[in-house]
Amino acid sequence: MSARRTIVTEPLTREAFAPFGDVLDTSGAADFEINGGDAKRFHDRGHIDCLAPGRAGLSTVFAVGQSLPYEMSMLERHPLGSQAFIPMQAEPWLVTVAPDEGGKPGMPRAFIAAPGQGVNYHRGTWHGVLTPLGTPARFAVVDWIGEGKNLEEYWLEAPKLVVSQPK
Amino acid sequence: MSARRTIVTEPLTREAFAPFGDVLDTSGAADFEINGGDAKRFHDRGHIDCLAPGRAGLSTVFAVGQSLPYEMSMLERHPLGSQAFIPMQAEPWLVTVAPDEGGKPGMPRAFIAAPGQGVNYHRGTWHGVLTPLGTPARFAVVDWIGEGKNLEEYWLEAPKLVVSQPK
Repeated sequence: MSARRTIVTEPLTREAFAPFGDVLDTSGAADFEINGGDAKRFHDRGHIDCLAPGRAGLSTVFAVGQSLPYEMSMLERHPLGSQAFIPMQAEPWLVTVAPDEGGKPGMPRAFIAAPGQGVNYHRGTWHGVLTPLGTPARFAVVDWIGEGKNLEEYWLEAPKLVVSQPK
Repeated sequence: MSARRTIVTEPLTREAFAPFGDVLDTSGAADFEINGGDAKRFHDRGHIDCLAPGRAGLSTVFAVGQSLPYEMSMLERHPLGSQAFIPMQAEPWLVTVAPDEGGKPGMPRAFIAAPGQGVNYHRGTWHGVLTPLGTPARFAVVDWIGEGKNLEEYWLEAPKLVVSQPK
């Protein structure tokens, strides 16, 4: 991993996040209308990928708020399944991920999810812990549930510091 | 179905909603802590039940806001899969459901989901269309995706009127 200590946040866009997972939002063109035109559906935007004998399940999480600059000391990944986090309030939150480099996380990237943006990490993607910004926050989670070891943690030798993009 | 025209809203609680589906929220006692104690997980609170050859997928919906009293003229159900709606803003919304009576919806019930409450309709449960209250709203959806007929609609002979519980 790069020795660079500071990570500057980026906006969360579908394109930038594509190597790590799916962005769940209602930006851009909808796929079709439902409910007699009263609603627009953005269809099949996140791929649930949970290996047998486990299954995908619905959970919720309540997490304390963090702030920037944010010190990141650990990344984790789940080899058995994708993992979606859907914010249940319209507040920004921090999404940290890293490419894999030979079984360890490479240089992390940090994305600011705007209000109304969730993510679905691809199976096996290195990511930081859940980090609402500001106040405590609720999330719905769609991830692998079953018997087995679905968690790998990697502690950084030197923590990274996530800082805001200059305005 | 009862000839009663008016449906009075009820608060959305796990117990009251149990015949129709799962409530996804962070009320009550968490199942365990994660992230070194910075977050509490309410584990496996909604059962994803999607029949093969389809699969569960992640979508989003943007829906116009409705208001009470609300006229309800149609219910629908999905025989091939459960369907979860997770609000992406902390606003109340209206959840309408009905028991099945010989292949048709029985007398509907109407629940007010509080901020931070989502639902997961059991497979085959009669329910009304997505009804945010007030402003337009975003939802994440976890439901059956595949080739096949997964929608049954039932139009009421006489619409029902959903009204607020008296304060």
